[in-house]
Amino acid sequence: MPGATTADLYEVTMAMSYLREGMTAPATFDLFVRRLPADRGFLVAAGIEDVLDHLAGLHTTERDLADFAAALGHPPRDVAPLAGLSFTGEVRAVPEGTVVLPGEPLVEVTAPLPEAQLVESFVLNEISYQTSLASKAVRSVLAADGTPVVDFSLRRTHSTRAAFHAARVGRLTGFSATSNVEAAAAWDIPATGTMAHSYIEAFGPEERAFRAFAEAHPGPVTLLVDTYDTAGGVGTAARVLRSLDRPGSAIRIDSGDLAEEAVRARRILDSAGLADVRIVVSGGLDEYAVDELRRRRAPVDVFAVGTKVGVSADAPYLNSAYKLVEYDGRPVMKLSTKKVTAPGRKQVHRSEAGGDLVTLADEEPPGPGRPLLRTLMHEGRRVHPREDLADARRRCAAEVAALDPAARGIHSPEPPSCRFSPRLDALTAKVQQHIEDAYTK
Amino acid sequence: MPGATTADLYEVTMAMSYLREGMTAPATFDLFVRRLPADRGFLVAAGIEDVLDHLAGLHTTERDLADFAAALGHPPRDVAPLAGLSFTGEVRAVPEGTVVLPGEPLVEVTAPLPEAQLVESFVLNEISYQTSLASKAVRSVLAADGTPVVDFSLRRTHSTRAAFHAARVGRLTGFSATSNVEAAAAWDIPATGTMAHSYIEAFGPEERAFRAFAEAHPGPVTLLVDTYDTAGGVGTAARVLRSLDRPGSAIRIDSGDLAEEAVRARRILDSAGLADVRIVVSGGLDEYAVDELRRRRAPVDVFAVGTKVGVSADAPYLNSAYKLVEYDGRPVMKLSTKKVTAPGRKQVHRSEAGGDLVTLADEEPPGPGRPLLRTLMHEGRRVHPREDLADARRRCAAEVAALDPAARGIHSPEPPSCRFSPRLDALTAKVQQHIEDAYTK
Repeated sequence: MPGATTADLYEVTMAMSYLREGMTAPATFDLFVRRLPADRGFLVAAGIEDVLDHLAGLHTTERDLADFAAALGHPPRDVAPLAGLSFTGEVRAVPEGTVVLPGEPLVEVTAPLPEAQLVESFVLNEISYQTSLASKAVRSVLAADGTPVVDFSLRRTHSTRAAFHAARVGRLTGFSATSNVEAAAAWDIPATGTMAHSYIEAFGPEERAFRAFAEAHPGPVTLLVDTYDTAGGVGTAARVLRSLDRPGSAIRIDSGDLAEEAVRARRILDSAGLADVRIVVSGGLDEYAVDELRRRRAPVDVFAVGTKVGVSADAPYLNSAYKLVEYDGRPVMKLSTKKVTAPGRKQVHRSEAGGDLVTLADEEPPGPGRPLLRTLMHEGRRVHPREDLADARRRCAAEVAALDPAARGIHSPEPPSCRFSPRLDALTAKVQQHIEDAYTK
Repeated sequence: MPGATTADLYEVTMAMSYLREGMTAPATFDLFVRRLPADRGFLVAAGIEDVLDHLAGLHTTERDLADFAAALGHPPRDVAPLAGLSFTGEVRAVPEGTVVLPGEPLVEVTAPLPEAQLVESFVLNEISYQTSLASKAVRSVLAADGTPVVDFSLRRTHSTRAAFHAARVGRLTGFSATSNVEAAAAWDIPATGTMAHSYIEAFGPEERAFRAFAEAHPGPVTLLVDTYDTAGGVGTAARVLRSLDRPGSAIRIDSGDLAEEAVRARRILDSAGLADVRIVVSGGLDEYAVDELRRRRAPVDVFAVGTKVGVSADAPYLNSAYKLVEYDGRPVMKLSTKKVTAPGRKQVHRSEAGGDLVTLADEEPPGPGRPLLRTLMHEGRRVHPREDLADARRRCAAEVAALDPAARGIHSPEPPSCRFSPRLDALTAKVQQHIEDAYTK
């Protein structure tokens, strides 16, 4: 499990220096994404609940201190100031499933400077990768346009931990089910599965395999038809399914031109009187492939997406940042090359008409709309219990439905507008001027 | 921690059917990669030690059985045949750090069919993503051509677990250090770190920040110079470093045109009499950027690579497969669309002259060369203790050094040849013919 040493060494060295200097005043860090990846019209925030769990449980153990000292090459007494360190601060964040845009804080951490600094890499990691995967997953749901999408990504995510969360953010963004047993059990997600080609091969004849599977599993079955020859496999499956009478059953096609194979399979099933047998397709699917299958009117009843969605293959990372915006009441910012960040504590207001306005936290709301950042942790404790995934899922669906259709496009989507308030712009200019006067020549 | 439920549901349903049918004869599965991603001339095998640990510790608990039953929607008694299941089989694999090519088995699992099937997704996940990250990481080492490379990827990998292994495979493939404290402690990797922009901003004036850092940390320091204005920051760092006399110190540049900034910084440092102060560069680096900096003769002493390497951004997954090749002594294969897999138990022979030959396991070696697959687990137990990372690192360095330079290129590398023996080809043709005759029309 991650702990206090799930940190970059510089967080430890900085924390030690801050403690030595007595710099323990409150610091505020914003976590935001600088730019959308290509073909993303919006992001779906995720990972926040795991961040809150981590912060609530954080405290340095003896073992952590030994690891800190070893990493620094210092004697253990040098890291004594870090003993018993926990997180005592405040977290404001958008709840999971919220649609967010570049430049908007997803998470704002305010805590004594050493604490807020020590958690930087952990917070960035959880929020960045889970938001990245959620923002990919939602696009499969949009492309499928009402047809169920299920998660088959366990075998290729970056660690089984990532798979656990890929299944969760799939569910968050509207997937129907996951093949991942651990995730299904943990998050109460419907589990789904069929059989592998190896299953058929171990039996030899497809019909024997299909019948044995049905004997072991009463109720609906999904039969994999492309081990030897897809059309032949569909014919065999049709024969077996007709004799079994298992309502809710399906076939799965995992290779070939999926649109052509689905059309052909549908015809074979229909002429066998099996109009109610569904067709599941899998094999390298992502939102682009799902969109193409829909455009070609392939008779697909379930899209099983895996690898490309589970690693967000076309955009496997976000350009995220965790930036100090205020220290001890003083707004601060970084200035260098094209990476100016806006100082101060903020709020994000979303208008009914679409479009966001980022303001300073203490500004009057600029009109109708709703604030996105909520206080989720206070003095190191959660303000609410962990949110139910079903609630976050409903929020996500509502947020995505409220978007302008142009933002939901699969190809070249157009993000909603996001502006900064005049007061925030003015503060940014003022702090920038101050830094240029004071620290640069 | 991953356990028996770290599996796709179909592995559970298949295992139950196999047990019901009494199909518990030995099954052999090959794990191999079908194709190299673009710009990869070879792969570096990784993840094998974690697979062995998992298999050695695998056993189904009461909790696992409850989760299986819940996922299936069956009463708990239905999954009783899975109670007490553990892994009792054999694993042959290439040791970590071995160079491997498409079509070659990296791992071969032989076990009673239900066991070999139940571990499919876990084995695929660990081997695929760790091999993917190792095969990316080694390219930064090649591009740096002797200049140290360090890992800064913790904040953007897909989970902190993936970061833990990204740091490890970085070390495996030749990195000098990691910023990840947890990984440094676990794998005995040198830890490295500097300071963040927020550190400078919290102090305000750079000079105050640099001096405070040095006071907290005796010994060499690395000062971050690009918070406000890089040339000014280098000048300030030079002044501080001259007054401190800290041999082994460095500056870090994290933005701008890194080649230009490094040249300018070198000039400033040299004219301040600080020829021994090193220059660390970071910010979006991967092997392509490192290669370009080398070609432009940028005076860089350490390359810190992060996000793009830690997620293998240009190829975030491998086209890997875990395929049944033999069941109960009978060679088997899958036939459908362009995915023919070679049947039977195999060995890979690497010749001194370069080039690999995949043979059947019981073939006489075709001449001088060495076999790559070794028995690492027998009857569910490791044959050797977990291999030391330092030994695997030495192996990797030797394997990479032995490659044809064309395979080591950063742009459009040419993979070494890999052929199948006539006996293996003949078996493939024979099994294919048998399947076509028996199961397709």
